[in-house]
Amino acid sequence: MHSEREGDHFNSVASDPGRVGNLKIMVRDERSVTPQSEDFSAWYNDVVFRAELVDRGPVRGSMVIRPYGYRIWELLQADLDRRIKATGHQNAYFPLLIPQSYMQREAEHVEGFAPELFTVTHAGGKELEEPLVVRPTSETIIGEMMAKWISSHRDLPLLLNQWANVLRWEMRPRMFLRTSEFLWQEGHTAHADAADATAETMLALGFYQDLAVEVAALASVPGEKTPGERFAGAERTFTIEAMMRDGRALQSGTSHFMGTNFAKAFGITYTSENGTAELCHTTSWGMSTRMVGGLIMTHGDDKGLVLPPALAPYQVVIVPIGRAEQAEATLAAAAELAGRLERSGIRTHVDARPQLSPGFKFNDWEMRGVPLRLELGPRDLAAGTALMSRRISYPRADAAKEAIPLDAAPDLLSAELAAFQAMLARRAADFRDEHTATVSTWPQFADAVATGWALAFHCGDQACEDDIKAETTATPRCVPLAGEPEQGKCVRCGKPSAYGKRVIFARAY
Amino acid sequence: MHSEREGDHFNSVASDPGRVGNLKIMVRDERSVTPQSEDFSAWYNDVVFRAELVDRGPVRGSMVIRPYGYRIWELLQADLDRRIKATGHQNAYFPLLIPQSYMQREAEHVEGFAPELFTVTHAGGKELEEPLVVRPTSETIIGEMMAKWISSHRDLPLLLNQWANVLRWEMRPRMFLRTSEFLWQEGHTAHADAADATAETMLALGFYQDLAVEVAALASVPGEKTPGERFAGAERTFTIEAMMRDGRALQSGTSHFMGTNFAKAFGITYTSENGTAELCHTTSWGMSTRMVGGLIMTHGDDKGLVLPPALAPYQVVIVPIGRAEQAEATLAAAAELAGRLERSGIRTHVDARPQLSPGFKFNDWEMRGVPLRLELGPRDLAAGTALMSRRISYPRADAAKEAIPLDAAPDLLSAELAAFQAMLARRAADFRDEHTATVSTWPQFADAVATGWALAFHCGDQACEDDIKAETTATPRCVPLAGEPEQGKCVRCGKPSAYGKRVIFARAY
Repeated sequence: MHSEREGDHFNSVASDPGRVGNLKIMVRDERSVTPQSEDFSAWYNDVVFRAELVDRGPVRGSMVIRPYGYRIWELLQADLDRRIKATGHQNAYFPLLIPQSYMQREAEHVEGFAPELFTVTHAGGKELEEPLVVRPTSETIIGEMMAKWISSHRDLPLLLNQWANVLRWEMRPRMFLRTSEFLWQEGHTAHADAADATAETMLALGFYQDLAVEVAALASVPGEKTPGERFAGAERTFTIEAMMRDGRALQSGTSHFMGTNFAKAFGITYTSENGTAELCHTTSWGMSTRMVGGLIMTHGDDKGLVLPPALAPYQVVIVPIGRAEQAEATLAAAAELAGRLERSGIRTHVDARPQLSPGFKFNDWEMRGVPLRLELGPRDLAAGTALMSRRISYPRADAAKEAIPLDAAPDLLSAELAAFQAMLARRAADFRDEHTATVSTWPQFADAVATGWALAFHCGDQACEDDIKAETTATPRCVPLAGEPEQGKCVRCGKPSAYGKRVIFARAY
Repeated sequence: MHSEREGDHFNSVASDPGRVGNLKIMVRDERSVTPQSEDFSAWYNDVVFRAELVDRGPVRGSMVIRPYGYRIWELLQADLDRRIKATGHQNAYFPLLIPQSYMQREAEHVEGFAPELFTVTHAGGKELEEPLVVRPTSETIIGEMMAKWISSHRDLPLLLNQWANVLRWEMRPRMFLRTSEFLWQEGHTAHADAADATAETMLALGFYQDLAVEVAALASVPGEKTPGERFAGAERTFTIEAMMRDGRALQSGTSHFMGTNFAKAFGITYTSENGTAELCHTTSWGMSTRMVGGLIMTHGDDKGLVLPPALAPYQVVIVPIGRAEQAEATLAAAAELAGRLERSGIRTHVDARPQLSPGFKFNDWEMRGVPLRLELGPRDLAAGTALMSRRISYPRADAAKEAIPLDAAPDLLSAELAAFQAMLARRAADFRDEHTATVSTWPQFADAVATGWALAFHCGDQACEDDIKAETTATPRCVPLAGEPEQGKCVRCGKPSAYGKRVIFARAY
C-alpha cells in the first residue's frame, strides 16, 4: 500500500468531482480524452495532463513532472542505472554552467547547438566577464576534465555517466518529447583505440534497446543514423527508433562514436605502453525523459494511459466496495491484501476515497493506466475472492472480470503482471510489424509513411533526403543493424543505394 | 568486487606513481596531506582533491564531483530518499529557470537571495523579455504550482520532494561546503493548519538528524535557529548542527516552517470542510552535498579520509600480495573472497594493480578512508586466513593486524563493519562533548569558541550578536531542542536571556 497517511497526493485530482455530487456524468465526460483516431496529438495532451504526469511550467517550453510521472522516470532510471553500473561505469557530476568558449572548440558541435543555448550573463548582481551557457549536453566540460585526468594507458578506458538536467531552447514544446529542460543520463567514455570505443558505443546502444524492450515494452529498432542525422561532432551515431501508435517514429536513445574529434578539441591524450603520445577515442550516449513520452504513445488508448507493469507506479489498485459497516470490512480486507501484495514486491494502492463512487474510481485508474484492478465487495469477501480486471488484453479483447482467490493473490497477480508486461511488448511489436512496409516504388513509399514506416533504398544524397522530407515530412530514421546486406535503387531518385541496406523512413517526433 | 573490467576509474590516480618506479618515497610524500593541527583548511583541501572526491570546475566556485565522491552522495541519497518516501512524500521535478518576478513576490525571500542569483538573459540567440533566474531554491515555483493543484481540504497535506541542482553565487568557494552549484533535495509541503505544518517541519528535521547520526555518524545537535539566522521568508527555522574536528559547527540540514508567508504570496488556498476559503501553511526542508563535507571533517585524520561503512564506496579492500606464480594464486583467492563478501552485501574491491607495491596501496586506501583492509599473501592463503586492518580504532588506538579465517569472513566482516560504524559515531559524539563548554562569563565564552562550542545565555539582540561575532567570529548556531528550560543573563551584555534555554555559539562553516 502506497501510504497510510491521509491526503495522498495522487488523490488530489478527484477533489473537484467529489464536490459536484450528482453531476458525476458531466465530470466524467470532462475527464475523458480525445479519441486517438480523431486527433492523436490532442489525445496525447489530454492524457499527460489528465493523468497528472506533468503540468506546464511558467516559462515557455518548460515542464513540471508531477509525482505520478516522476515515479515512472525513477523506475526507468533505476533499471538503466543498474545496467550502467554492472558494466563498470561510474556516476559523477559535472557543472551545469559551461564557459561559452568551450562550446566553440569543436566546430560541428557549436554549430549544432548554438541556436538552442540558454546563456547566463549575470551572477551575484554583476555582469560576467565571459557568458556561461547552460549545458545542452556535457561533451565539452567532460572533455576538459578527461584531458586532466587521463595521462597513461592505465587510466583507460575511463567510463563515466551523469544523471542531470539539460536545457535546449524549444519553440514548439511538447511534454516529455520536446521541452526546454529535460532530464537524462549522459554516458561519456574515453578509450585507447577506435575498436574499444566502437565496442562501448554498441554496448550503450544495447542498454537502451534492452531497457526499451524489456522494461518499457517499446517496439524499438536499433540502427545507425545516416550522416545528415548524426549528433553534432560525432563520426557515427546509433539510435533506437520506436514506433508510436500513430505510425510515427520516436528516437528513444542514442549512442555516439566521436572518433578523436573531441580528443583533438580538448587535448585528451595518453601515453601508450610504448611511451608514445596518443589521442583517445571517445563516446557519448544518452536516454532521457523522452522515453516516458514514447511509452505513452506506444501503449495508450482512448481510455488513457496503459503502463507496462515494470514502470507502473501502482501495478495493482484495489477498490473496496460497500457502504456503512460493509465499507469498514472491505476496507480492512483491502488493506490486509495490499500488505501481502507489497510484501511480495507488487506495488499496490488501495483507493479508499470515501467521496467517490466505484465507477468513478474505475475510470480514474483506467485513465492512469494501472495494469490490474481488484474490486473487493462484501460478496467477494464472503466468497474469499476479489474481482480482477486487466487494463487491456491482447490479442483477444477480453474485458471480463475474473474472480481470484484472496489467499493465492500474490502469486497469481505476480504471474498476471509478468503476462501483462509480455503482452504489451508483443502488441507493440505486432503493431510495428503491421505498419512497416518494404517498398520499391515512390507511391508505395508515400503510402507507407502516411501511416507507418517504409523500408526503402536510398541514394544518401542530402538533396534527395530534403526532397523526400518536403513531399512527405518523412526522414531517414536509421539503417537497421539487423538483416543481411542488400543493394537496390533509391526509392526517390533511382540512383544506387548508399547504405548497403534498406533504410527506415518515417515521420518522426 | 566492483568491476572485473580493466581500467577501473578509481585506479587512475595511481598511474603517475606507477611510472616513476623507484621514486616511490618521493611520490608518497607528494600524496601525503597537511596535518590537521598545522592547517585544518589545507588538510581539507588536500584530502578532497587527493582522495579524488572532487575537482575544480572551469568556472569560479564550481565543483566536479568525481566518482568516488559521487558514490558517497548516492549512498546518502538512497538512505534519505527511503525515509522521505516511507512517510508518504512523493518525488517530483520542477523547472530550473524561474521568472525573475516570482522571486520578488515574498519580500524577505527576494532580499535573502538577490545577491546570490545567476540570471539567464538570452535564449535561442535572442534576449528574453523577462530575465530568468537559475533556482537558488524552489519555494517560489513550487508555491505557484501548489496554488494550482490545491483546491479542497481533501488535497491536503500535499507532500512533495525534489532532488535537484541549485545555484548560488559564491565569492569564497570551498568544495562541498560552499560552491556556486550544489546538489540537494528540497521537500515542500502544504498543510491545512499550523499544527500539521509544524509536525511536518519536525518530521523532516528528524530525517536529517537520523541520517546524520545513523548513517554519516556525525555528532549533530537538532535545534532552532535564532531569528537572525532564519531562512529568508520562514517563521521558524530548525537545523542540525554538527561539530567538525577543528571545533567549528557545520549546519547539515534545515527545516523551515513558513506559516502562511508563501501561501499569501502565491495564493495557496483551500476550501475547508465548512466551505470557507483558507490559506495553507507550508514547509520546506533541505539536505545537500554539504553533508559530504561534514563527514570528511568529522572523521578524517592526518592519513586522509575515514569513511563510515554506511557511506563507503568500498567497505573492504583486499590487497593480494605475492610475485609471479604466487600473485596468480592470491589474486584468484582475493577474487573468490570478494565474490563471497559482495554476495553478503559488503561493498568490496580487489586492488589488483600490478605496477604498485602493497605499501603504496595501503597508503592509497588509507587516504581514501576505506574502513577495513585485508592483506592476502601466500602464507595467509596456506593458513586459510587474511590479515585484517581497521582504518582507525577507538577509544584504544589499536593498529595491530588481525588474522581472520577466510571461511568465516563474510559474517566476521559484517560484524566488524557494524562495530566500525558505531565506533565512529561514538568517537564523534565524545569529541563534541569534550569540546562543548557550558559557560557563564565572557572569558569562558571566548575560550570555548576558540576550540569548540559554547552553551551560553543570550539576550537575543541583533546588535549583541553582531558584537560577539566581531570579537570572536562565533555566531548562534541553534537553541537545542533537548534539555530543560533555563533562564539566565546574556553572556555578553548581561540582559535577560531571550530563548528560555542556553544557545550553542560556535565558529561555523
